[in-house]
Amino acid sequence: MIKRRKTRQLSVGAVKIGGNSPVSIQSMTKVETSNVKAIVSEIKELEVSGCEIIRVAVKTIKDAEALKNIKRKINIPLVADIHFDYRLALKAIEGGADKIRLNPGNIRGRDEVTRVVKAAKKAKIPIRIGVNSGSTSGDFVKSAISYIKLFEDLNFHDIIISLKASDVAKTVEAYRKISKLCDYPLHLGVTASGPYKYGIVKSSIGIGSLLLDGIGDTIRVSLTADPVEEVAAAKRILSSLSLRKFGPEIISCPTCGRCQVDLVKIVNAVEHEARSAKYDARKHPLTVAIMGCEVNGPGEAREADIGIAFGKGCGMLFKKGKFAKKVSAKDAITELLQLLNTMR
Amino acid sequence: MIKRRKTRQLSVGAVKIGGNSPVSIQSMTKVETSNVKAIVSEIKELEVSGCEIIRVAVKTIKDAEALKNIKRKINIPLVADIHFDYRLALKAIEGGADKIRLNPGNIRGRDEVTRVVKAAKKAKIPIRIGVNSGSTSGDFVKSAISYIKLFEDLNFHDIIISLKASDVAKTVEAYRKISKLCDYPLHLGVTASGPYKYGIVKSSIGIGSLLLDGIGDTIRVSLTADPVEEVAAAKRILSSLSLRKFGPEIISCPTCGRCQVDLVKIVNAVEHEARSAKYDARKHPLTVAIMGCEVNGPGEAREADIGIAFGKGCGMLFKKGKFAKKVSAKDAITELLQLLNTMR
Repeated sequence: MIKRRKTRQLSVGAVKIGGNSPVSIQSMTKVETSNVKAIVSEIKELEVSGCEIIRVAVKTIKDAEALKNIKRKINIPLVADIHFDYRLALKAIEGGADKIRLNPGNIRGRDEVTRVVKAAKKAKIPIRIGVNSGSTSGDFVKSAISYIKLFEDLNFHDIIISLKASDVAKTVEAYRKISKLCDYPLHLGVTASGPYKYGIVKSSIGIGSLLLDGIGDTIRVSLTADPVEEVAAAKRILSSLSLRKFGPEIISCPTCGRCQVDLVKIVNAVEHEARSAKYDARKHPLTVAIMGCEVNGPGEAREADIGIAFGKGCGMLFKKGKFAKKVSAKDAITELLQLLNTMR
Repeated sequence: MIKRRKTRQLSVGAVKIGGNSPVSIQSMTKVETSNVKAIVSEIKELEVSGCEIIRVAVKTIKDAEALKNIKRKINIPLVADIHFDYRLALKAIEGGADKIRLNPGNIRGRDEVTRVVKAAKKAKIPIRIGVNSGSTSGDFVKSAISYIKLFEDLNFHDIIISLKASDVAKTVEAYRKISKLCDYPLHLGVTASGPYKYGIVKSSIGIGSLLLDGIGDTIRVSLTADPVEEVAAAKRILSSLSLRKFGPEIISCPTCGRCQVDLVKIVNAVEHEARSAKYDARKHPLTVAIMGCEVNGPGEAREADIGIAFGKGCGMLFKKGKFAKKVSAKDAITELLQLLNTMR
């Protein structure tokens, strides 16, 4: 349903960004990068949860020197986040970083930026020009454009762009603007979006509304929370827009005075099972509708791959749009899981 | 920043919907409506949490008869949700419902719908034409348009429209379409959006991206969860788009390898205090930025009403864009809360 904007394609390690490649999921580590043992363990956990590209802060030469070691122990591309000191970028490229993220505005001097761009070109790795509204005075879209121009003048086109603000409307406006001005892939995110319950709302609106418009090639949900939650939220954003599938999708009503079963319990039990690793969503992107009454229940249940619409003490079970059987409420969890198992 | 679409204004009890009125927050009860004691207690809890309009399912004549009693005991407008049987609508109007929600498509017969419309007109209450994709076969925008036509033919214009689907993109597309075809206020929601962590993402994207476009006059977040969470989520959606303010907004970074303080602890402590009732957000819609390092920290801290950007073991405190003082990390919570208290 969503028609994605055409962008250049480039590679971050083995992961392609832009063009027709799937919208990829990124996150960032929280521990000091020079603490190799701790950071590798954090990255391993993120890999398992579905993170596809990992970024680490490179604050010191020790951090930059650790990259070689980290890279050897992980399976996803490694991005070095650089600010202020261009020598950290050079060192990170030397250490095998798969991408550099920097805000050229806080690297002192054009010559220094030039040296980084030349080193990236030689190493054949892309650079993300990441301009955050908080680190720029004035129009940050204009800033980004001037940096793109600088990179292009150096005949460097392996560029990804991000324009994050902590304000959702400002973020969306900036990305919409830049999407019309160039065809470089865009890395989406709302920055400093706050604690989990706030951040999830801000990130979903910001990233989601851009994706709905076909804008965005890779995403990072920022949360003041466990980065595993960032990856889980990113997956939910992408799957709710049918851009990617990561497991059976549960459609369930909020319940109301019509509902005569414990729907929350049934939904949670089925969801728990559906989350388990044995469902390969790329092969079987199932939808499971669990509905509390006869108003929208039969409609949603029929449209889903598996569906149940409850009435008083029992439910009508549907499989692939066809009525399968009537089941009692107490057997519903078992029946739904059995059906789910036959369809994976 | 958001330019809202012009719509007609109408009243649901004391709450105005459409025109220039603020986007209002709705929820729906979960218990049987005829159980007056239980439903009033549920509504009271929702009122405290910030729900501005409450909808109840009217499934039986007993439910409809309970409305008079319920209305007497609550402070927010009461909406009767009717399906299948037009007599329930007539009874609900008689019982003092402030609005009727129905899907004319599942009320048998045009004459029956006409009787409901005439009764609503006499009682001077609006009707929400709520067409869900799950209860309609075919194009649900077309269905809504045909019902609007039917109501207009009866010279009834006190109409609110909703077009909810469980698919986010389909929902957004439907609302965008109808927003160009009429000027009736729109009630936004994504239906059957699933358990909390999924529903929050789907609802934020669906409702949020429409609001960003200026579409939407009243909202309901549907979650298979406690309805108090629906109201909290609705508040977060509206405040993240600066359409309403409900308390100080926390801007905080996700932290990374640069951060040398326990930012999550500091953010949670400040947020807890900021949530407390003593902050009247309408008078003082404060922003509080709590940032982990010197990259975007000083910028975000300076843009907020209160801000702190941490470095090694200490932070730079800003008040209204001006540097106030340097504070040690261990005093940061106390200092931030003191400042917050002086500014309310």
